[in-house]
Amino acid sequence: MKKQLSKSHIPVAQNASGRNLNVPVYKITDGLPGPSVYIQSSIHGAEVQGNIVIYHLLQALQNTTIYGEITLVPNCNPVGTNIKAGEYTLGRFDPVNGTNWNRGYHYDHDAVLAFAETVTPEESVTSIKARFRHMLTSALNDKRRAPWGLGLANQLNLTLQQLAVGADIVLDLHNGPVSTRHIYIPEYAKQAARQFSIPHCIFIPNKFAGALDEACFCPWWTLQSALEKRFSRPVSFDVEAFTLEMGSQEVISFSEGEEDAKGIMAYLSAKGVLDKNAFFPMTIKRYGVALENYKTLFTDFGGMVEYCAKPGRAMKKGKVLARVLNIDDLDNQNAIHTITAPCDLIPILHFPSASVLSGTQLYKCFTNYYAIEAS
Amino acid sequence: MKKQLSKSHIPVAQNASGRNLNVPVYKITDGLPGPSVYIQSSIHGAEVQGNIVIYHLLQALQNTTIYGEITLVPNCNPVGTNIKAGEYTLGRFDPVNGTNWNRGYHYDHDAVLAFAETVTPEESVTSIKARFRHMLTSALNDKRRAPWGLGLANQLNLTLQQLAVGADIVLDLHNGPVSTRHIYIPEYAKQAARQFSIPHCIFIPNKFAGALDEACFCPWWTLQSALEKRFSRPVSFDVEAFTLEMGSQEVISFSEGEEDAKGIMAYLSAKGVLDKNAFFPMTIKRYGVALENYKTLFTDFGGMVEYCAKPGRAMKKGKVLARVLNIDDLDNQNAIHTITAPCDLIPILHFPSASVLSGTQLYKCFTNYYAIEAS
Amino acid sequence: MKKQLSKSHIPVAQNASGRNLNVPVYKITDGLPGPSVYIQSSIHGAEVQGNIVIYHLLQALQNTTIYGEITLVPNCNPVGTNIKAGEYTLGRFDPVNGTNWNRGYHYDHDAVLAFAETVTPEESVTSIKARFRHMLTSALNDKRRAPWGLGLANQLNLTLQQLAVGADIVLDLHNGPVSTRHIYIPEYAKQAARQFSIPHCIFIPNKFAGALDEACFCPWWTLQSALEKRFSRPVSFDVEAFTLEMGSQEVISFSEGEEDAKGIMAYLSAKGVLDKNAFFPMTIKRYGVALENYKTLFTDFGGMVEYCAKPGRAMKKGKVLARVLNIDDLDNQNAIHTITAPCDLIPILHFPSASVLSGTQLYKCFTNYYAIEAS
Amino acid sequence: MKKQLSKSHIPVAQNASGRNLNVPVYKITDGLPGPSVYIQSSIHGAEVQGNIVIYHLLQALQNTTIYGEITLVPNCNPVGTNIKAGEYTLGRFDPVNGTNWNRGYHYDHDAVLAFAETVTPEESVTSIKARFRHMLTSALNDKRRAPWGLGLANQLNLTLQQLAVGADIVLDLHNGPVSTRHIYIPEYAKQAARQFSIPHCIFIPNKFAGALDEACFCPWWTLQSALEKRFSRPVSFDVEAFTLEMGSQEVISFSEGEEDAKGIMAYLSAKGVLDKNAFFPMTIKRYGVALENYKTLFTDFGGMVEYCAKPGRAMKKGKVLARVLNIDDLDNQNAIHTITAPCDLIPILHFPSASVLSGTQLYKCFTNYYAIEAS
Repeated sequence: MKKQLSKSHIPVAQNASGRNLNVPVYKITDGLPGPSVYIQSSIHGAEVQGNIVIYHLLQALQNTTIYGEITLVPNCNPVGTNIKAGEYTLGRFDPVNGTNWNRGYHYDHDAVLAFAETVTPEESVTSIKARFRHMLTSALNDKRRAPWGLGLANQLNLTLQQLAVGADIVLDLHNGPVSTRHIYIPEYAKQAARQFSIPHCIFIPNKFAGALDEACFCPWWTLQSALEKRFSRPVSFDVEAFTLEMGSQEVISFSEGEEDAKGIMAYLSAKGVLDKNAFFPMTIKRYGVALENYKTLFTDFGGMVEYCAKPGRAMKKGKVLARVLNIDDLDNQNAIHTITAPCDLIPILHFPSASVLSGTQLYKCFTNYYAIEAS
Repeated sequence: MKKQLSKSHIPVAQNASGRNLNVPVYKITDGLPGPSVYIQSSIHGAEVQGNIVIYHLLQALQNTTIYGEITLVPNCNPVGTNIKAGEYTLGRFDPVNGTNWNRGYHYDHDAVLAFAETVTPEESVTSIKARFRHMLTSALNDKRRAPWGLGLANQLNLTLQQLAVGADIVLDLHNGPVSTRHIYIPEYAKQAARQFSIPHCIFIPNKFAGALDEACFCPWWTLQSALEKRFSRPVSFDVEAFTLEMGSQEVISFSEGEEDAKGIMAYLSAKGVLDKNAFFPMTIKRYGVALENYKTLFTDFGGMVEYCAKPGRAMKKGKVLARVLNIDDLDNQNAIHTITAPCDLIPILHFPSASVLSGTQLYKCFTNYYAIEAS
Repeated sequence: MKKQLSKSHIPVAQNASGRNLNVPVYKITDGLPGPSVYIQSSIHGAEVQGNIVIYHLLQALQNTTIYGEITLVPNCNPVGTNIKAGEYTLGRFDPVNGTNWNRGYHYDHDAVLAFAETVTPEESVTSIKARFRHMLTSALNDKRRAPWGLGLANQLNLTLQQLAVGADIVLDLHNGPVSTRHIYIPEYAKQAARQFSIPHCIFIPNKFAGALDEACFCPWWTLQSALEKRFSRPVSFDVEAFTLEMGSQEVISFSEGEEDAKGIMAYLSAKGVLDKNAFFPMTIKRYGVALENYKTLFTDFGGMVEYCAKPGRAMKKGKVLARVLNIDDLDNQNAIHTITAPCDLIPILHFPSASVLSGTQLYKCFTNYYAIEAS
Repeated sequence: MKKQLSKSHIPVAQNASGRNLNVPVYKITDGLPGPSVYIQSSIHGAEVQGNIVIYHLLQALQNTTIYGEITLVPNCNPVGTNIKAGEYTLGRFDPVNGTNWNRGYHYDHDAVLAFAETVTPEESVTSIKARFRHMLTSALNDKRRAPWGLGLANQLNLTLQQLAVGADIVLDLHNGPVSTRHIYIPEYAKQAARQFSIPHCIFIPNKFAGALDEACFCPWWTLQSALEKRFSRPVSFDVEAFTLEMGSQEVISFSEGEEDAKGIMAYLSAKGVLDKNAFFPMTIKRYGVALENYKTLFTDFGGMVEYCAKPGRAMKKGKVLARVLNIDDLDNQNAIHTITAPCDLIPILHFPSASVLSGTQLYKCFTNYYAIEAS
């Protein structure tokens, strides 16, 4: 069979004009056996670089042999993309109720544990995977048929999750505010850190907080743990899901997007979706951190802020992170508050506006981080 | 000692000009022993009727004997009050990150259970209350001193909670969108339903989801349950907390506020804060519902909506709740979608805008509700 | 020829997903000679009642003989309709730059005067109208082809104006914030006040400020005046345009919309678009005011407001319009500011939120108004 | 007399909590005769770099002899600064009604012409200036006492204008979206182009559109022209006003602010406010353009945009300004729209978001610009 690239559109919501809002779904395959991959971008409306990455992936994949099938869903949240507040895109949450667009996916821990009890020691991984997927799909369908209806973010998320639930590999492409590239990696899939070309890696536990990556890996990780405990032997389903943060929101760069796409193809190559020797991750320094050491620094005072630290560049305790100008004290010593690093850290991202209220998330930082050795 | 009415201001945040945002704190007492009461309003900026209620309370309390002390904090969220989005107030959540202003209070279940272990069978209720309050206060102080800082909603909530933590009675005054008056009552304080003058009562379990009422009653309810189990006898601390929904947001009425204030004074009278025979609840029909039967109806389609049901008026299954106009089908039979009641219900509130996207919360309704008999 | 009802969609903009935003255009005719009518609604996104009026018009017109042709464009601003800011619709202006959606229509005073010079005393009204319309249409086409592009509101407005430019009668359906029904009438078409069923009439001069009604009547009024002056005899083109304010924004009512539609049909009947004796305006009291006496009352202070006056109900100088609560002075005489009527007036509309900053438009009022006698 | 630095606060509005919003007013002088200077920043809330410039000016001016007096008003719009919409500051317009914060200043052309008639050929420039200022001040006072009140932007603008009306030099510090430094210069004060250190100069005519610079220079320019015509001799009042665009909004840099301050001091030095030989403008290439050749490029289609041109860098006709990604056409040749320069130009600023609707202002550009020769 030769290469097939198909495009369809699925409705995910209706706007206030009563019209369907659609997302495009691209599928590409060579008809060869292999993993199923699902990649989406822009669930947060202002985080647009992933769309460029998908554009470059689609160009490259048309000239590369694919084992399995790859589904690509750019601009997966047409509501979030289209809510302007001033010149910028109010893309992180539903403007009506504040619901984060990336917190309404579904995961039922107890249902996974119950399913684990139905597995016999003899059942093959293939059979378990098929039965488990069927259960997950049915649960999503049930949830989407809620008799009193569902909230908008929930509807959107579950429709997308229905596309992702059959995939072995799920990549959710995001951006930080003003940000260096980083990635969230579930701890059980730690080796992936070296397969992408992303310098900053956050290792996360088996805990569901509503996001797509968690909704995709928690069921498999939980099932795997439950079966390993029951059968006292290693079990692996080789299902992985990641959130990739491709730099800063409200910015797109075609040339950087091409590099981002290459990094993803290196990972796909490592997983056997693309030829093993076709694509390799870049030789870069990688740093890892446990989620609990990925810290948010809030400001205690409001004012005008200069961000003095560059995302991605390590700094020592006590160095200046930010200066806040107090316009009522320009004639005295209190004109400038200086905010310093509470410990050695790598600033990963900072707030995108120069005006802040107290309690604003100024920086997110790696602390107690470590270099990831090349394998 | 004669009546004392004091006013102070406490800073709860700094705005982007670097200036303190203060909330007014009124305290009123006759210096007589009795419960401590805390009442706040407008944590959600568009929900302003409670400020009028506090105005009327303050007028009335200056001519009424008070046993104990009453603290009144109107307009307790100066950030939320001052975020305009178009002509309306974007008051429910932080416009920067979507955080609901009523979800950042503190409760530590395990700390309560650990405290329960420190109580001996002989310890008096007074002693337990004093020690427990001291623990709760310390925990709040610790949390507020977070070395990396706190988010804005969190800071605001914890500052207010520090005012409320010493109270025996906590009333948080809210409004619904377009709404009839209703109240959230923890199940262990069920009898309060008859002490207020609010027709619609939602009984809620001992579960913390971040709101002030929960943050105030969960610790005491949990402690009470733990001690009752340990000592196999009834324990009561007589600490109660409620969320009162005083009609519709974005509307104030001085005359209705005067009635609202009388209803609260009836409750305070029943609790011994005011003279027992001075104020009585109104003789009205009251309806109760378990939280799990307080249902939200979402719309499956977007469009222009007429709300056909009046909040507070019971309706039968199948009656028309709303009509949605589809402007692309004005020339055919699909021009109007009709949304009907899925079961017998009392609509309590509906969405305040006539334009909706799919997934909008159209109505919240009492289902499987029951009449509350007069005692 | 029998009745023809057609529907088409025209694109007016592209959203941030790169997709066309369309408006529906309904045309209805019996193929009989007569005036051309253009009716649109919801250029301001939150002003939705006009869509219901158009729905009822379409139902009624299918059973009524039409002389000429009627074009109906409901929900003519799909951008404005779909910008939510909190629960409400931010419909009055482009959220990116604050441009009022009803200020970007085109009118070129000098071009009209130049055209007037081309008319000879012998030229028939029919010929003048045809030539003038051709000139207006060409000017719009030129403007829309601006080599450096056009702003969004401008693009939208000019596309709609191109639909309206050929009409003899233009009705632009709006709503006020919290408002009684009222209508803007150009002074040269004063008699229309008695042909509609709208109680409050504002008579406006021949001055262009960017709105659709002005853009439609200014050219004809100006041409008429110029020719009357040149030829020293009355000239009439019988082209009229009005802005109708159908009550309050963010509210729709099907039953009131049916009455609104009947009122418009009475006007169309008077103009010969419908049978002369088929529809009559209601017998109601009508009040008129010159635009310069239609006054806006701004508040000097911020706070929580109770609106004490009901739109549409006349009041005497000195009566209470509003009360503003000052939450920092609940313990003293300054708790309430009272705002009174500066003169005898009819409040027509008031601000829709109970929280205001200083400088907010509290009320718009008829002053020095007069009763309009039945003819 | 020795150096005096004073600070006061003036209220410019009240917020929805009923509290005064103040702006800080710094005045600095050595008590020596000389011009009066007025400098304000951040009338648009997101344009914050000017505050840093004022900070540096205040530091430097404490160590420099001043001839005359300098008034500095940082963060002059506390409403605009504090309206957050998502993470960014919605600073350009009133969120309630879309009114641009820099369009409500006052200018009465006819009053100036009438004043000109009162001047006799013998009257000294000093006397004319004094009388004219008195007239302007009175007119502002009258306007501020409007019996029905004033809109918020109007109130704010007029209060600030009252501070500026007495000044000989007025500098209004702004920022563009993503922008290179540029300045608006009234044509009659053309020589100022060489006195600042700003590379891009827009020369503007004597036309009032509501902004502070215009409100400050139009009266003097108009008076000067009227008197020159009447008396047939040159007249000069040496009153100048400029809008300076100090780079990009939502960004502050202390080090760049120090350079910005030096540039302003060079101009003040040229005007005799500071010692003539103390500060000099930088030796840079300067480019000038007539306002009519400062063009806005709107996009015809919506989508995700890469800005390919760097503000401040000249480019040839046909070079790529932007690329727009169409997510529905990633599988074909229409994936990318390329937008090219319609002529040789210098892009001065571009839109700050990567998601645009059609009709968005993508770039503002110098066309038909010319090099300004060093004097």
